[in-house]
Amino acid sequence: MDIDIIQRLLENYKEGKIPLTDVLGKIRELPYKELGFAKVDIHRKIRCGFPEVIFCMGKTPEQVVKIVAHIVESGQDMLATRADSETYNAVLRKFPEAVYHEQAKTITIRKTRENINEGLIMIITAGTSDIPVAEEARITAEFMGNKVKALYDVGVAGIHRLMRNHGELLKANVIIVVAGMEGALASVVGGLVDCPVIGVPTSIGYGASFNGVAPLLSMLNSCASGVAVVNIDNGFGAACVASLINSKRE
Amino acid sequence: MDIDIIQRLLENYKEGKIPLTDVLGKIRELPYKELGFAKVDIHRKIRCGFPEVIFCMGKTPEQVVKIVAHIVESGQDMLATRADSETYNAVLRKFPEAVYHEQAKTITIRKTRENINEGLIMIITAGTSDIPVAEEARITAEFMGNKVKALYDVGVAGIHRLMRNHGELLKANVIIVVAGMEGALASVVGGLVDCPVIGVPTSIGYGASFNGVAPLLSMLNSCASGVAVVNIDNGFGAACVASLINSKRE
Amino acid sequence: MDIDIIQRLLENYKEGKIPLTDVLGKIRELPYKELGFAKVDIHRKIRCGFPEVIFCMGKTPEQVVKIVAHIVESGQDMLATRADSETYNAVLRKFPEAVYHEQAKTITIRKTRENINEGLIMIITAGTSDIPVAEEARITAEFMGNKVKALYDVGVAGIHRLMRNHGELLKANVIIVVAGMEGALASVVGGLVDCPVIGVPTSIGYGASFNGVAPLLSMLNSCASGVAVVNIDNGFGAACVASLINSKRE
Amino acid sequence: MDIDIIQRLLENYKEGKIPLTDVLGKIRELPYKELGFAKVDIHRKIRCGFPEVIFCMGKTPEQVVKIVAHIVESGQDMLATRADSETYNAVLRKFPEAVYHEQAKTITIRKTRENINEGLIMIITAGTSDIPVAEEARITAEFMGNKVKALYDVGVAGIHRLMRNHGELLKANVIIVVAGMEGALASVVGGLVDCPVIGVPTSIGYGASFNGVAPLLSMLNSCASGVAVVNIDNGFGAACVASLINSKRE
Amino acid sequence: MDIDIIQRLLENYKEGKIPLTDVLGKIRELPYKELGFAKVDIHRKIRCGFPEVIFCMGKTPEQVVKIVAHIVESGQDMLATRADSETYNAVLRKFPEAVYHEQAKTITIRKTRENINEGLIMIITAGTSDIPVAEEARITAEFMGNKVKALYDVGVAGIHRLMRNHGELLKANVIIVVAGMEGALASVVGGLVDCPVIGVPTSIGYGASFNGVAPLLSMLNSCASGVAVVNIDNGFGAACVASLINSKRE
Amino acid sequence: MDIDIIQRLLENYKEGKIPLTDVLGKIRELPYKELGFAKVDIHRKIRCGFPEVIFCMGKTPEQVVKIVAHIVESGQDMLATRADSETYNAVLRKFPEAVYHEQAKTITIRKTRENINEGLIMIITAGTSDIPVAEEARITAEFMGNKVKALYDVGVAGIHRLMRNHGELLKANVIIVVAGMEGALASVVGGLVDCPVIGVPTSIGYGASFNGVAPLLSMLNSCASGVAVVNIDNGFGAACVASLINSKRE
Amino acid sequence: MDIDIIQRLLENYKEGKIPLTDVLGKIRELPYKELGFAKVDIHRKIRCGFPEVIFCMGKTPEQVVKIVAHIVESGQDMLATRADSETYNAVLRKFPEAVYHEQAKTITIRKTRENINEGLIMIITAGTSDIPVAEEARITAEFMGNKVKALYDVGVAGIHRLMRNHGELLKANVIIVVAGMEGALASVVGGLVDCPVIGVPTSIGYGASFNGVAPLLSMLNSCASGVAVVNIDNGFGAACVASLINSKRE
Amino acid sequence: MDIDIIQRLLENYKEGKIPLTDVLGKIRELPYKELGFAKVDIHRKIRCGFPEVIFCMGKTPEQVVKIVAHIVESGQDMLATRADSETYNAVLRKFPEAVYHEQAKTITIRKTRENINEGLIMIITAGTSDIPVAEEARITAEFMGNKVKALYDVGVAGIHRLMRNHGELLKANVIIVVAGMEGALASVVGGLVDCPVIGVPTSIGYGASFNGVAPLLSMLNSCASGVAVVNIDNGFGAACVASLINSKRE
Repeated sequence: MDIDIIQRLLENYKEGKIPLTDVLGKIRELPYKELGFAKVDIHRKIRCGFPEVIFCMGKTPEQVVKIVAHIVESGQDMLATRADSETYNAVLRKFPEAVYHEQAKTITIRKTRENINEGLIMIITAGTSDIPVAEEARITAEFMGNKVKALYDVGVAGIHRLMRNHGELLKANVIIVVAGMEGALASVVGGLVDCPVIGVPTSIGYGASFNGVAPLLSMLNSCASGVAVVNIDNGFGAACVASLINSKRE
Repeated sequence: MDIDIIQRLLENYKEGKIPLTDVLGKIRELPYKELGFAKVDIHRKIRCGFPEVIFCMGKTPEQVVKIVAHIVESGQDMLATRADSETYNAVLRKFPEAVYHEQAKTITIRKTRENINEGLIMIITAGTSDIPVAEEARITAEFMGNKVKALYDVGVAGIHRLMRNHGELLKANVIIVVAGMEGALASVVGGLVDCPVIGVPTSIGYGASFNGVAPLLSMLNSCASGVAVVNIDNGFGAACVASLINSKRE
Repeated sequence: MDIDIIQRLLENYKEGKIPLTDVLGKIRELPYKELGFAKVDIHRKIRCGFPEVIFCMGKTPEQVVKIVAHIVESGQDMLATRADSETYNAVLRKFPEAVYHEQAKTITIRKTRENINEGLIMIITAGTSDIPVAEEARITAEFMGNKVKALYDVGVAGIHRLMRNHGELLKANVIIVVAGMEGALASVVGGLVDCPVIGVPTSIGYGASFNGVAPLLSMLNSCASGVAVVNIDNGFGAACVASLINSKRE
Repeated sequence: MDIDIIQRLLENYKEGKIPLTDVLGKIRELPYKELGFAKVDIHRKIRCGFPEVIFCMGKTPEQVVKIVAHIVESGQDMLATRADSETYNAVLRKFPEAVYHEQAKTITIRKTRENINEGLIMIITAGTSDIPVAEEARITAEFMGNKVKALYDVGVAGIHRLMRNHGELLKANVIIVVAGMEGALASVVGGLVDCPVIGVPTSIGYGASFNGVAPLLSMLNSCASGVAVVNIDNGFGAACVASLINSKRE
Repeated sequence: MDIDIIQRLLENYKEGKIPLTDVLGKIRELPYKELGFAKVDIHRKIRCGFPEVIFCMGKTPEQVVKIVAHIVESGQDMLATRADSETYNAVLRKFPEAVYHEQAKTITIRKTRENINEGLIMIITAGTSDIPVAEEARITAEFMGNKVKALYDVGVAGIHRLMRNHGELLKANVIIVVAGMEGALASVVGGLVDCPVIGVPTSIGYGASFNGVAPLLSMLNSCASGVAVVNIDNGFGAACVASLINSKRE
Repeated sequence: MDIDIIQRLLENYKEGKIPLTDVLGKIRELPYKELGFAKVDIHRKIRCGFPEVIFCMGKTPEQVVKIVAHIVESGQDMLATRADSETYNAVLRKFPEAVYHEQAKTITIRKTRENINEGLIMIITAGTSDIPVAEEARITAEFMGNKVKALYDVGVAGIHRLMRNHGELLKANVIIVVAGMEGALASVVGGLVDCPVIGVPTSIGYGASFNGVAPLLSMLNSCASGVAVVNIDNGFGAACVASLINSKRE
Repeated sequence: MDIDIIQRLLENYKEGKIPLTDVLGKIRELPYKELGFAKVDIHRKIRCGFPEVIFCMGKTPEQVVKIVAHIVESGQDMLATRADSETYNAVLRKFPEAVYHEQAKTITIRKTRENINEGLIMIITAGTSDIPVAEEARITAEFMGNKVKALYDVGVAGIHRLMRNHGELLKANVIIVVAGMEGALASVVGGLVDCPVIGVPTSIGYGASFNGVAPLLSMLNSCASGVAVVNIDNGFGAACVASLINSKRE
Repeated sequence: MDIDIIQRLLENYKEGKIPLTDVLGKIRELPYKELGFAKVDIHRKIRCGFPEVIFCMGKTPEQVVKIVAHIVESGQDMLATRADSETYNAVLRKFPEAVYHEQAKTITIRKTRENINEGLIMIITAGTSDIPVAEEARITAEFMGNKVKALYDVGVAGIHRLMRNHGELLKANVIIVVAGMEGALASVVGGLVDCPVIGVPTSIGYGASFNGVAPLLSMLNSCASGVAVVNIDNGFGAACVASLINSKRE
């Protein structure tokens, strides 16, 4: 569209309909991104593999339904995170094909289901209470076209549970470690594998966990070197980073 | 002594030298601890196995020498912590038998060397930088009459180093885990053993370790249940608690 | 079980049914803990005196009932902490023998009631508001087979209440001090006794208590040396450590 | 002076030299405090008992000497706090009567030495390392004309040391409690006496004392009700408040 | 009572009914406070002017009613703080003479209404939202027998409101400054008066007030020297300290 | 009024009805602000352009209605912030002309609608969730007589959205940047424009945003120099500062 | 230059030397800012009134001299902040016209000295220790072409010092308030004037000032509405904002 | 080796030299990792591409030299981080081939120089002061066999500097963003590219940057989804993660 404007401008100029100074003026005024709009669009596709993710927290069910409609009508797959059941029911009434992932609190509407990326993303949790955050990561990563394997409740208080799965860990292209309390699992896993580890501290715990500060600091200070960290409870963000890592590994 | 005062008071009263009201008044004024002085003294002996530990930080070498003299002349063993080499040299000039433990920054003068407690205290560190704090704990624990075994540099980044020593861990009556950075070692050890674990977070690390806050929170939120924690870099305190635990295990 | 597998493997090898390389391969693949399963099991028994504790916070009543059933059916005693009355009622419907400790918010189903450990665990609180945390500790410690004595509301604002019980304190093998507000009680008790003190800071207080940070810091900086600390409101954890300490004191 | 200006203004007005509007305009412009200058001065005398205290931190020795000269030449007593020996030497060269209180790091030049206030201010410390802060309080309180009694090293780790002096505590009009580490002494003293207690947390300690935050929070959350708190290491401020309290008690 | 026990003990001893060693043993075992019980009781009366204050937060209405009954039946005045209207109604049903101070959320039952202390306690607030905390202080101070004057909504955003009342401020024996947001009022008042100022930071504010941390730090760092601070929202504590200060000023 | 008092005083004095000393005494007693009352009043008008803003949080609907009545009856425009719909309905019943701005949670009653200030205040947000805070700023700024232009959802995750509006930004006299999460928008805008930028961090976000601390710190550390910051979620305050800046730009 | 490239491109296209698609491709690749380079340059001039400010902290004297040379040789005025005397001496050797402002720790080389902006920037400090930060602001504001008036040591502990200068305050277009300790001055000034107030918290203080956190929070929570805040000790930043505000007031 | 032990054990058993129970006992005692030692070794090679990195902080020059010798003599490349010039000189005396990277404070001894990974790691900084941390990352990433491109001083205060290099950014496989102050660059870059972004907050800044906390929180709350974070100033760690990401992209 914008590129059309410029094209017409240039043709007019060539045909002598407008002077050079006018063309220069117009170009100077055109916002940069307008010039590159198409490219931007493409690189957004490349970047995420999907148009837009709806963060439902703080939005009314009606607002969410409206955005869902916009995405679905444009023929794209839809992912909504942090959605409660009330929001889901509102979406369901208009889009019977919508699927609710209760633990993950996410809604998806997907037409395509092939995996774009061949590599494996492994998602592991320290405890059972960390599973909702891990599930948000799992649904997101799968939605983005990744093969995902989940390994839950392998925290360091019983390290043999993790050790028993050492072989599985080594098959992953990238591992998402979801852990609350002291978050030690990220360091231990980081010391066992040869792929990047994305740590997701969770707000699971009480008292001096300070709603996830304890595992956050723990993961940032990991004595194993291959660990990077995202925000507390940010399963979605971890899956985004993991998918970007995995997308280059075919 | 104080008990003598009361005894005389009572005898005088019995002999009719002083009236009842006087006795009651005197007793009311006598400080409680005076009545129980001897008992207190004894229970201090029982509690620590030595009279007094000198915390040198913030004291001049001269002050330290004076307190050392007081202790040594009363025929007791002497332990001074957080002592720099200047302080040691000042002590050495007057007490050639003084021994300096450089990494632990402690000075000891001991006549007796038998172990009072039979059980084993194990002290393990995550990294080599944690060793000075661990050595403060080791010297203190030995001084208090405990058998001590040290196992250094077994942090979770290479968990096999710890696993290889699992058998050793199981021999301890109490384990002191000294760790900086993310302090994950305390949780991992806590999950492997059947004895109390005393966590000592250290200020080793930088940035978001916040001088030991990261491992402190980590250890307080340990997902393994048998872990209790002392102050950052407090090797001495950990050894005190460990010695009290160990002292009842003969 | 696992040890059976290895035994059979070795017998087959000895009998020439399988070659050496096969045996080596199998052993290498066997998880470490499998080799030591029996021992691990035993040491878990030794460590806790019971199979598993259910932390109810964040679990639905249905989930809790399922885990309770699993434990009870395997013939073991059951302890569930942080359980509200709704959860208790759900458990009660299936297990009429379940007992609810309202202040402690714990549910127990016990068949055995003998004390494994002879020593005494004393639990004291600074105020009446600290009692629920103390009760969690008491129920847990008793469940683990310890003799427990409770001494509540002896905070330092009226130090004579504590002094009056000095003799009682000296009978304990380990003392759990539960205190909110400024948490001074841990230091004072630590200075009066010759056994380890486990401090439990509570979130009792307001304003600058910061939900338990004030007593937490207070206890970590105790001027008495024999004090170690667990997480804020962690009565359960304190009882675990205390039981481990007490279990070696027969 | 200012009052003179107004007086003249009014006389001129009465004599018809200036119109009413002019007088109103002038009065409106006159700063409030100018009108009350003398009173303000007097109430500053009443408030502090001395003209001005020099806070030396961040001032060069030359700057301090200049202010000292200004105060001394106006015939008043002089108090300078947080002064190092270099500053003292600079002052001493010009004012041989200057006295340096080394532990308190204060300099005084006093002509009058009578006590203005009859009541007793008691200053007690938990440990020996808290003494410098306590000495700043003592010198300040004495300088302001109070009788002061010091009782050092009576921390709660050995509560009998404090108990032995219970009678002394009861004689005070106000007690300043100086304590680092966990600062429990303020609560304990607050529970033993019937006069206001001013808590001074000190930066003595390490690790989780966070340079005095631990005792600060401890004192703010005191379970004893008669305790108010000043800034960390603020011996001077505590003495100011205590002197104000004591000054009304003759 | 306890003193009776000792008296009888001594009489028996004098009469030769029990030997000296028995008396010494008994005395040693008697808790210190028992010996001084009467004195303690008296000094508690002196200290507070009333037997006990009920902190209702965290207590059920039934529990509060029970304690109220205990106090009232012993013939004493009763003060309960942090009481909601439900608790008040429960109290009212049994004690029709109970008065509820709605803003202060306190309940009182008083027979005596004379002022014990002659001096004036002034309570001022920065804004109208700080009034509930100030009212808790006012009711408490009056209950303790003090004359109280309230001056509300004189915050520094319109400093003339405070200045207009400068004369009033100077009449007080002690001033309680209740302020949220930035808490600047304490410093300003501290610079205007010659009596002690007790600062009460409130949790009024939002965002970077961090529930009262901003005014707390502000008051602790007051550039005026005569300011001491109590916990956030602690109107009761401020009144206690103020009453102790005022009680010596007759 | 006050000025009348002084005028009469002076006239009486001139007429010899009262002596000079009486006049001086009276003047000394008159509060400063009384002298300057009229001027103060005027400068309050200049400062804010309206008499008083009602901060509804913590006020009952009845209290708000009372204050609204007071303002409206005095013939002035009325602005109430942080008002919920219940409060609005209470106001509406008495003042049918009241308008509720739902997102901004503000109520206005305006008679005058002209813009006092000619310059433009631009308000931009990073995301859609920041809009309520921005709307509070917009309503406030318009109420104060400013032209306002809003540009929402131009956060840095898609920087081209902002770039496309670079020209618009340059037209503003002052820009209010409302952003939660990492708050980077303030720095980016600050680097693009030649007018002051007022940053408003919002509590939008979760985990390590710590209710707005992350964007607050971000804006305070802005690498662009023309940025100043107000409290978290303080749209009202930002509009006040912006209006003061804009008011001098006609 | 860049505009030349586009001009040539367009001419070539018009002359048929290159096809339309080539022109479009080239334009798309051209960075946005290149198109607008001249305009950007101009708006930078408008924005700051000078080319570049050197932040010396963390740069070697040699590095600073090199940048100074670059600026001076291009004929522009030079301002370097946070420069120590060693850096100044290095600059002085090459540029004898360089002036060092010792308290402000800034170096300037100025040819032009006229004021661009007519309005007055007033800079006030609470204490004498805040002066270095204020001086950094003053030198910066003057360098940017503003009239500046300084009013130092008018903190709220003696509020009359500020009141005496109320008239002066009202003359300013914008006021910079520099204050450490509790930072109350910003609120008080904000309540007295009708122009924007920029608060600069300083790290002056100790203990619970936490290196400037106390005044930072204080200023962010100002109960006066016209106050915005910059980073701790950021005199330079405050002057930038003030100059931007003032620059529109001719 | 260890596998040899087991082989011999099994052969002895088959030959009847030792009974089955002995074999089972021995196997149970063998550390798990011993069985897998060779594999572990290999996966460490795969993981890092080099044997060991020396973290020099807290090590004496002599200690560093010893470890360097150990690595070099085993024929491997050597990397030492956080090394000062004194340490470098000590290394240089024994290893003349050692290279010191002054800004990065790293020492390298490399024999092989080919790149193992084909993809590009781009490292960008917000300011010039962030360069040392970026250089640590660059040297580390190159040492690990990656192609690295550096783009320094492209902070968001002049966003056009970054935009001009948009094309370059798109060529990277992974981007390391090194930024202090408000750390906004990570979010902006994250919104412009389709590869993972590793944020490294730096301690560059002052006041409310709190030694890197501000950019750390900023990056953790990035509104762009593809950003993960490492510890403050941890250039080494960022390069490790980036290299792991890049290593799978050939």
